[in-house]
Amino acid sequence: MPIDGTSEQTTGRLRLGMVGGGRDAFIGGVHRIASRIDGHWDLVAGAFSSTPEKSQASGADLGLDPKRVYDDFSAMAKREARMKGGIDAVAIVTPNHMHYPVAREFLKRGIHVICDKPLTSTLPEARKMAKAAETSDALFVLTHNYTGYPMIRQAREMIAAGDLGEIRVVQVEYAQDWLTEDVESTGQKQAGWRTDPERSGAGGSTGDIGTHAFNLASFVTGLTLESLAADLQSFVAGRRVDDNGHVMLRFEGGARGMLWCSQVAPGNENGLRLRVYGTKGGLEWAQEDPNYLWHTPFGEPKRLLTRNGAGSGPAAARMSRIPPGHPEGYLEGFANIYSEAARAIRAKKAGEPIPEDIHFPDILDGVTGVAFVDACVRSSARNASWVTLNI
Amino acid sequence: MPIDGTSEQTTGRLRLGMVGGGRDAFIGGVHRIASRIDGHWDLVAGAFSSTPEKSQASGADLGLDPKRVYDDFSAMAKREARMKGGIDAVAIVTPNHMHYPVAREFLKRGIHVICDKPLTSTLPEARKMAKAAETSDALFVLTHNYTGYPMIRQAREMIAAGDLGEIRVVQVEYAQDWLTEDVESTGQKQAGWRTDPERSGAGGSTGDIGTHAFNLASFVTGLTLESLAADLQSFVAGRRVDDNGHVMLRFEGGARGMLWCSQVAPGNENGLRLRVYGTKGGLEWAQEDPNYLWHTPFGEPKRLLTRNGAGSGPAAARMSRIPPGHPEGYLEGFANIYSEAARAIRAKKAGEPIPEDIHFPDILDGVTGVAFVDACVRSSARNASWVTLNI
Amino acid sequence: MPIDGTSEQTTGRLRLGMVGGGRDAFIGGVHRIASRIDGHWDLVAGAFSSTPEKSQASGADLGLDPKRVYDDFSAMAKREARMKGGIDAVAIVTPNHMHYPVAREFLKRGIHVICDKPLTSTLPEARKMAKAAETSDALFVLTHNYTGYPMIRQAREMIAAGDLGEIRVVQVEYAQDWLTEDVESTGQKQAGWRTDPERSGAGGSTGDIGTHAFNLASFVTGLTLESLAADLQSFVAGRRVDDNGHVMLRFEGGARGMLWCSQVAPGNENGLRLRVYGTKGGLEWAQEDPNYLWHTPFGEPKRLLTRNGAGSGPAAARMSRIPPGHPEGYLEGFANIYSEAARAIRAKKAGEPIPEDIHFPDILDGVTGVAFVDACVRSSARNASWVTLNI
Amino acid sequence: MPIDGTSEQTTGRLRLGMVGGGRDAFIGGVHRIASRIDGHWDLVAGAFSSTPEKSQASGADLGLDPKRVYDDFSAMAKREARMKGGIDAVAIVTPNHMHYPVAREFLKRGIHVICDKPLTSTLPEARKMAKAAETSDALFVLTHNYTGYPMIRQAREMIAAGDLGEIRVVQVEYAQDWLTEDVESTGQKQAGWRTDPERSGAGGSTGDIGTHAFNLASFVTGLTLESLAADLQSFVAGRRVDDNGHVMLRFEGGARGMLWCSQVAPGNENGLRLRVYGTKGGLEWAQEDPNYLWHTPFGEPKRLLTRNGAGSGPAAARMSRIPPGHPEGYLEGFANIYSEAARAIRAKKAGEPIPEDIHFPDILDGVTGVAFVDACVRSSARNASWVTLNI
Repeated sequence: MPIDGTSEQTTGRLRLGMVGGGRDAFIGGVHRIASRIDGHWDLVAGAFSSTPEKSQASGADLGLDPKRVYDDFSAMAKREARMKGGIDAVAIVTPNHMHYPVAREFLKRGIHVICDKPLTSTLPEARKMAKAAETSDALFVLTHNYTGYPMIRQAREMIAAGDLGEIRVVQVEYAQDWLTEDVESTGQKQAGWRTDPERSGAGGSTGDIGTHAFNLASFVTGLTLESLAADLQSFVAGRRVDDNGHVMLRFEGGARGMLWCSQVAPGNENGLRLRVYGTKGGLEWAQEDPNYLWHTPFGEPKRLLTRNGAGSGPAAARMSRIPPGHPEGYLEGFANIYSEAARAIRAKKAGEPIPEDIHFPDILDGVTGVAFVDACVRSSARNASWVTLNI
Repeated sequence: MPIDGTSEQTTGRLRLGMVGGGRDAFIGGVHRIASRIDGHWDLVAGAFSSTPEKSQASGADLGLDPKRVYDDFSAMAKREARMKGGIDAVAIVTPNHMHYPVAREFLKRGIHVICDKPLTSTLPEARKMAKAAETSDALFVLTHNYTGYPMIRQAREMIAAGDLGEIRVVQVEYAQDWLTEDVESTGQKQAGWRTDPERSGAGGSTGDIGTHAFNLASFVTGLTLESLAADLQSFVAGRRVDDNGHVMLRFEGGARGMLWCSQVAPGNENGLRLRVYGTKGGLEWAQEDPNYLWHTPFGEPKRLLTRNGAGSGPAAARMSRIPPGHPEGYLEGFANIYSEAARAIRAKKAGEPIPEDIHFPDILDGVTGVAFVDACVRSSARNASWVTLNI
Repeated sequence: MPIDGTSEQTTGRLRLGMVGGGRDAFIGGVHRIASRIDGHWDLVAGAFSSTPEKSQASGADLGLDPKRVYDDFSAMAKREARMKGGIDAVAIVTPNHMHYPVAREFLKRGIHVICDKPLTSTLPEARKMAKAAETSDALFVLTHNYTGYPMIRQAREMIAAGDLGEIRVVQVEYAQDWLTEDVESTGQKQAGWRTDPERSGAGGSTGDIGTHAFNLASFVTGLTLESLAADLQSFVAGRRVDDNGHVMLRFEGGARGMLWCSQVAPGNENGLRLRVYGTKGGLEWAQEDPNYLWHTPFGEPKRLLTRNGAGSGPAAARMSRIPPGHPEGYLEGFANIYSEAARAIRAKKAGEPIPEDIHFPDILDGVTGVAFVDACVRSSARNASWVTLNI
Repeated sequence: MPIDGTSEQTTGRLRLGMVGGGRDAFIGGVHRIASRIDGHWDLVAGAFSSTPEKSQASGADLGLDPKRVYDDFSAMAKREARMKGGIDAVAIVTPNHMHYPVAREFLKRGIHVICDKPLTSTLPEARKMAKAAETSDALFVLTHNYTGYPMIRQAREMIAAGDLGEIRVVQVEYAQDWLTEDVESTGQKQAGWRTDPERSGAGGSTGDIGTHAFNLASFVTGLTLESLAADLQSFVAGRRVDDNGHVMLRFEGGARGMLWCSQVAPGNENGLRLRVYGTKGGLEWAQEDPNYLWHTPFGEPKRLLTRNGAGSGPAAARMSRIPPGHPEGYLEGFANIYSEAARAIRAKKAGEPIPEDIHFPDILDGVTGVAFVDACVRSSARNASWVTLNI
């Protein structure tokens, strides 16, 4: 049951531009693949680097028309907004501190924005970004890509339907090991900016991956955080941001939780794992094996749901392309965000309301995420006292 | 470390046509996604159905120029071969019995062929197909897509390097459950042609999935089959082809093995699993969790290799797009076949030899696969006596 | 819910003797622990070795009264049968070729026999053993210990209740790696006798572990084997018995199966695994994780049953001691055979019929197991032609 | 390689008495099986209930001499201490609030004590217990049974050897689901006393299972807790003790951790799980699959160590009875505590020092455990502020 019937080819594709994502970058390439999978998008323009030669070289790698490869994102915004056949949307895949200045230029010209997370590197900038998004007619899409996994949609659907009863406990974690040693001092580019508070923000592991974990827990459960208490560490000598964080969570309505994020846990590659327990049952999901969802109704045998398999419902099916037992992965989950964005943009272009079944993380998710990181840093500075999010 | 630097965009993509794969089809949609992932291909033409209206409707779904949507594959072959900007390659995704007549038309006009497996529904046709491929200058690529999984490349690389010593035992299986009941009588289209010997061939589960299992074992181990003994069953009353098969394998050089294929094993979705044991160690891999490969060197702790993680080598990296812990799946493995084909075709277009590190299943794999099914059916008819492949 | 309420202490325990199981032996120690777990037995006598000093030293290790430590099993049988407070039962844990001569001495004197598997090293001896058992009033218990695992009882109960519908396919395997190299030439005692056809029988891996796999499949499914075709190998140069075997199975009533046994599969410790598929569902179980049983009803989500957890029934509970989530293992499964034997013997002593819910493998299982090995060897010698069991 | 060579039989066994553990009790039966497995102990006396008839009935179930079945633990202590052949040790398996009054009677008469955890229901009583233990010549053994699992010993050995480098992060959890609903109001006896602060102590899940998790983390890592911050909940309306707890941990030397305990997490049976990460690698272990230990050396493939398999060392071997691949479980781990106690008592009886390789949880572990629960309750009452243990 592939769903690519909506995937138009030479005609009708949306036009995508990209800021950031040149040679040596990581996430830009992921965005490009994600944009291609369902055939909704064509990449046609970009400002891939602040170094003109690098930007041109990257554009050439990608087969772009050199005239649409820019040295400067604001020149790009101006020209693409004016030109016939200019881009419909821009993907922003720069380091975090550039998200706001870039987005502002496109939003104010009505170009839709698809922005990597976290929203910004500081909370004041996040608020400015929110204002810019509110005052623009363009859509703002944040790539909290894990919300695009089919079985995450399945989990959310089940909780919304009351299958777990009242939620009591949320356990969420995202563990990696790539910063176990002081790799930022060796010139590794990814480590360089991600551990630099100027470019990444005050949170290290909290901003890079903790915010994913928090977003995922919120998305699946539908719960709103009331307060948190965080104990953050920088285990590697000289590191300027946290590389491990322990957070206790209190949700409105009485549910409680814990969040662990770490980039110094050897053997963990991308160990994002969510467990939710309510009065009637539990759910467990792990990003590294994303086609499975454990459902544990209280007092009954454990059930292993598989994507599109028996017991898997319409929310998962809508995000799936192939039959159960043929695994879909990270790129397909990411592609789902791009495809949801495309559907919303097409509706807007057609002057129709955005269909209710479309979901993508938005500006509010973005502000909440930055506020989460900010709250973690504040709490930890006060010896892990309870703080609320400043949204 | 995405590898999409080679993925050209508006310029330079190869042009793909498709025969079969209209509405209600399954594998055509998979081929289309696979062709898009790495940005090497644009689908520009197709004969999606033998019913003209269906073909046009499918072409419209896909946004194709109506002039390049054909009612008839041979008209398509003729016109595309003549026209400027005609297709570089055709994807053949029809039921098995149509593979040969379709491929012949394109091969004889020098259009590269990417054909779904099994090669043909009969062995005589497979031999004709081989002749057609030999006498054509075009490439013939068979989508035994499981050979595109990165950790399958890793396994093959390790065995070729001698990490397992001399191979002794091969255990391979492919189990499904979707034909547990007589679904072909209910009008289910996929079940209809796949259980019809006229359209599918004399083998049922052996042809549909057993041939994948056999191809995978051969690809990974590099072993050549000497003979087999097969006991095939049609458990569902009235079914005209096998739905379960037990096969014992003898390889040249002394290795032995077993193959199990089944479409009546409840709880199995796409349970393709390979285990290989040699004098120095073992390897285990399962399609449903494809980013993992167990390596069990004799007398040492078991090791779990992850795609692109520690211990994973260049053969896997070449087939990968993203870091370890972010799962790639079935579609990416399938895309690897399309990307290998694209690289080979580009080399041919440039008048260069095909680089040695490129691998895709070819016409010989196809003939061997059909001969395997033929041998299973012959052996089973003789009470599971040993037979050799008629290649 | 521990079930040791029946476990009497200083009074009332049954008296156990042992033949074999001295220093350096393996399985004797397992039998002793198994006999102690539920408190039904006290070991009070033994002929632990044919070397008098070794037998005495082993008896002293175990704290036995030296007068009840014998040099010679037939002296032991005679004296224990005559003496007041003599043993109720004897555990025979010698190499296979000694099972019959030892058992005969005890059976003819009315002493119950608990014998390790396989029953004997040859089929003629197995028949003699059957005659000896039939003509004795004593019980004959064969320690096919895997039938004592609670979730194996659960599986059997479910199949008997029709939960799987009509059985179609049985996949069973037992893989090890300890004979990957020629360890018998290094003086390793266990490898020495187990690869010696004089002491072990004509089957190597088939007799040592294949017979366990076959027994388990038969026990769980209740199916009777009609015929088999076996391809056996001795991969290690100079080895005199098979170390790997591939067997196709045909059961009465139409079910088919495959059995793989191997002692040369690196990474496999005691990989006994059973999968059964019927018209209504499937079951999967693995000895190395014995507290779990997968149940896959066709068209419903997969269920993971845990020992004594939700969905686990009375047959498993009867064999369990502790709550779900606290694993029971190999020794408890083995102990269940000893406890079933004790309950049966107590009933006999009380002049009562043996309760119907008691199950232990018996002489018929033993003869069938030896006939299975014999059939494998015969079939393999005839190029894997189909043979029936000579029971 | 069974290690029951030290297991004496009719002669030489140590004599065990039991207080608590009558009909309907759970843990008493576990202690009895554990005491039998290695053949070191004979249960010969008991005060199984404070109701005389129940005590006698339980003693009769167990086949004890009625003269050694007592109505009253202090009568038992007096008489057994005086009589020839009186008990060597007493197992205390009562609800928590009785541990101290019972233990005092036996300790002051020089009878060794094997006491279930937690040590006592209050911290003042724990201190009195410590004094009683110090002033007695008898041994005090606390059954933190999880420390008896072989792969836990393996983990501890590896960390002590520096295999993980400097420890940074400890993640430990113990999740159950049996108190998801208000089962204490239904008359379930186990739930009744375990949720009654008078009998169980101020901690509910913290005292019942959190203390196990904390003990295990401390035992394996060798770290000393500096302070903790706990957020405890009683999710079930009317419950008088916590049924879920989130705890952040700070260890001396800089390591940090989190502990989660819950009895309201559906689908969790006995989910005790420990993960430890250091500068050089990580370890992961789960109680429900106790024969496995993941070792993840930084930058190398993950390794799965199996009990007694390749890479498993002497500390695990010392606690094992059977070869790898044959699972040992909860009862064997528990038996290891009994066997260590027996070895220590034999040494004392022989006037020899207790061998250094013997380890069992002792009075200090007990006081620390009660102080841990006390600290959790204090911290939670102060809105999860940091507190230290009052040891």
